[in-house]
Amino acid sequence: MKKFRLFTPGPTMVPEDILLEMAHPITHHRTPEYREMAKEVTGLLQYLFQTKGTCICVTGSGTSAAEAAIVGCCSPGHKALVIRNGKFAERWAKVCKAWDIDHTALDLEWGTGAKVADVAAAMDADSKLDTVIVVHSETSTTALTDVQGIAGLCRERGAIMIVDGITAVGAIPVKMDEWGVDAYITGSQKALMLPPGLGFVAISDRAWDRIEGGKMHSLYTDIKAYRKSADTGDAPYTPANTLMAGARMALRKIKEQGLENIWAETSMLAKATREAAKAIGVKVYAKDTVDSVTALVVPDGIDEPKLRKTIKASYGFHIAGGQGDLKGKIVRFSHMGYVDAFDTLGVISALELTLGQLGYKFETGAGVAAAQKVFAESLK
Amino acid sequence: MKKFRLFTPGPTMVPEDILLEMAHPITHHRTPEYREMAKEVTGLLQYLFQTKGTCICVTGSGTSAAEAAIVGCCSPGHKALVIRNGKFAERWAKVCKAWDIDHTALDLEWGTGAKVADVAAAMDADSKLDTVIVVHSETSTTALTDVQGIAGLCRERGAIMIVDGITAVGAIPVKMDEWGVDAYITGSQKALMLPPGLGFVAISDRAWDRIEGGKMHSLYTDIKAYRKSADTGDAPYTPANTLMAGARMALRKIKEQGLENIWAETSMLAKATREAAKAIGVKVYAKDTVDSVTALVVPDGIDEPKLRKTIKASYGFHIAGGQGDLKGKIVRFSHMGYVDAFDTLGVISALELTLGQLGYKFETGAGVAAAQKVFAESLK
Repeated sequence: MKKFRLFTPGPTMVPEDILLEMAHPITHHRTPEYREMAKEVTGLLQYLFQTKGTCICVTGSGTSAAEAAIVGCCSPGHKALVIRNGKFAERWAKVCKAWDIDHTALDLEWGTGAKVADVAAAMDADSKLDTVIVVHSETSTTALTDVQGIAGLCRERGAIMIVDGITAVGAIPVKMDEWGVDAYITGSQKALMLPPGLGFVAISDRAWDRIEGGKMHSLYTDIKAYRKSADTGDAPYTPANTLMAGARMALRKIKEQGLENIWAETSMLAKATREAAKAIGVKVYAKDTVDSVTALVVPDGIDEPKLRKTIKASYGFHIAGGQGDLKGKIVRFSHMGYVDAFDTLGVISALELTLGQLGYKFETGAGVAAAQKVFAESLK
Repeated sequence: MKKFRLFTPGPTMVPEDILLEMAHPITHHRTPEYREMAKEVTGLLQYLFQTKGTCICVTGSGTSAAEAAIVGCCSPGHKALVIRNGKFAERWAKVCKAWDIDHTALDLEWGTGAKVADVAAAMDADSKLDTVIVVHSETSTTALTDVQGIAGLCRERGAIMIVDGITAVGAIPVKMDEWGVDAYITGSQKALMLPPGLGFVAISDRAWDRIEGGKMHSLYTDIKAYRKSADTGDAPYTPANTLMAGARMALRKIKEQGLENIWAETSMLAKATREAAKAIGVKVYAKDTVDSVTALVVPDGIDEPKLRKTIKASYGFHIAGGQGDLKGKIVRFSHMGYVDAFDTLGVISALELTLGQLGYKFETGAGVAAAQKVFAESLK
């Protein structure tokens, strides 16, 4: 039997029991039962983001949630620094542009993450900057930004810090309150192992002070409208209630497993993938590698679309290609959510088989053996 | 065994095979398979709206889709007339206010729909009005607006007409192109018998001409970003792909059944409910009744929350109460989507049983007999 395994960095595989949970008969959302469920989701999101702040569910993609947070925090009179180091970072600069938000975009080399020094230098050069927007895990380049360090700087300088945590939250360490982040965003179809359709935002009290004073030109993405729903469970607009039922089950699983354990497992899968690549002479793309997604450089002479087509058609693994300038140059593997060592060993095996068929020279089995060594060290 | 039946005017019951269709393993949306599916959905939406115009799917509630259409059509320099005859109509005036859209709200008595004369008089009084926003079926009051007539007027005067068809499209006659409507909106959780989470908009070429010239301050609800996705199947932001798979199946069912047949059945269910109410001395609330939802006036001496609580707890029927000023005064029954004569006979039976238990005096069985007569006339 041919099996299909989804290794794209979102959507990710959804556990079978969550798929069936969402297939339950439809109920109404203006009921005590729904409100209880939504409040439980909110509470579990606080655990997920490691915050006592308000956690909000938006029916929409991660972009809708990020836009609500950015626009809410960046009223006229404020100026944002957008660190632009990949395709998703570019999108947040586009949000600023669309809304006429006063901002400066700081371009970093793709494959690198932002460091404290980058942000400090930009803030030194422009005293109007009072908001910092970064991508924790830039999915397009698999680069990790130093959120903890930059949040510390923002706390020192009184700036509001907004973090796109779409492929970070629930996969790699995120400690919103301890680090001092003001708005953290994620989406359902990543480490939360749900279908797409929900965006989540956690907001600090510092951010609310700014948001409540600002003017928001929108109804659907007006984050203020969602604030009280976090307490009452009563969404301002009809919520995607089947996805919310899935979210409750997914978040319960995450809490039961424990975030620290999940972070460790994700890190192990990433390490195994990097070690496997190294063992077969394939380069890891990013300089500042993140553990939720790995990008490998397609070896010279190998046709990237053919690689992805073959690994999917012959072996059932759907991996992602590159985006923007990286199209045709890299392939990406997710380590988020409902994926384990044995799935990962499978994708490494399929990658070896595919590269071999396409004429790439390497020692067969070196990749899986290298991954196995990482698992043997960690899983004991 | 106790059965649960959802009679709220959205969410509505979802067919079991659609629930399971959405429980299939997750796949990626940047694939030829997804694009084919999205294009099929687009084509089926054109049938649903009866238009050759562009049909767009937004991951969000109906409000997100309506906001995208309104804001897209109402750039500075244009002035909108918002007919305000219920809670959802009020929301579109709020969208205009949030976005500083030049507009006039015309208040009509709740329970009535807008007529050509209302709109003509408003336009005569203010020559700047070049956009008309109406609710086809005002879910909160169950009132029907004369969309065909008002669209004719808009065509005569060169105005753009935006119609909230959230509880109209797929339930009652909607002929977008024949009537000359420019933007028609609906949501997934009504006549489309899907869970909440998708909004749909159909846009005429006349509306595109205006939209393309305007400036949109948004990313997620910028309707322009969705335009090309209707042709390519490539959504601008991660789409709710499981809901889209459900939408394809639901729309295929609708096309197979035939819109005219669905409109006739919805109308029959509404008539049966009204006749049943009359037979037991319960008043129908709306003056201009719509066939997708029926509101009945709670008889004097009957406690409305107790009525709804009893009919749900004892008999498993979830009906809706009133909203805003109508809270405690009416109860509402959906006739949309996956509901038939026998379900409707069931809810009338349960209503009789509940009213009887709460002390209301009427001839037991008169309601179901009256409904049965309507079915006997229609189903032959």
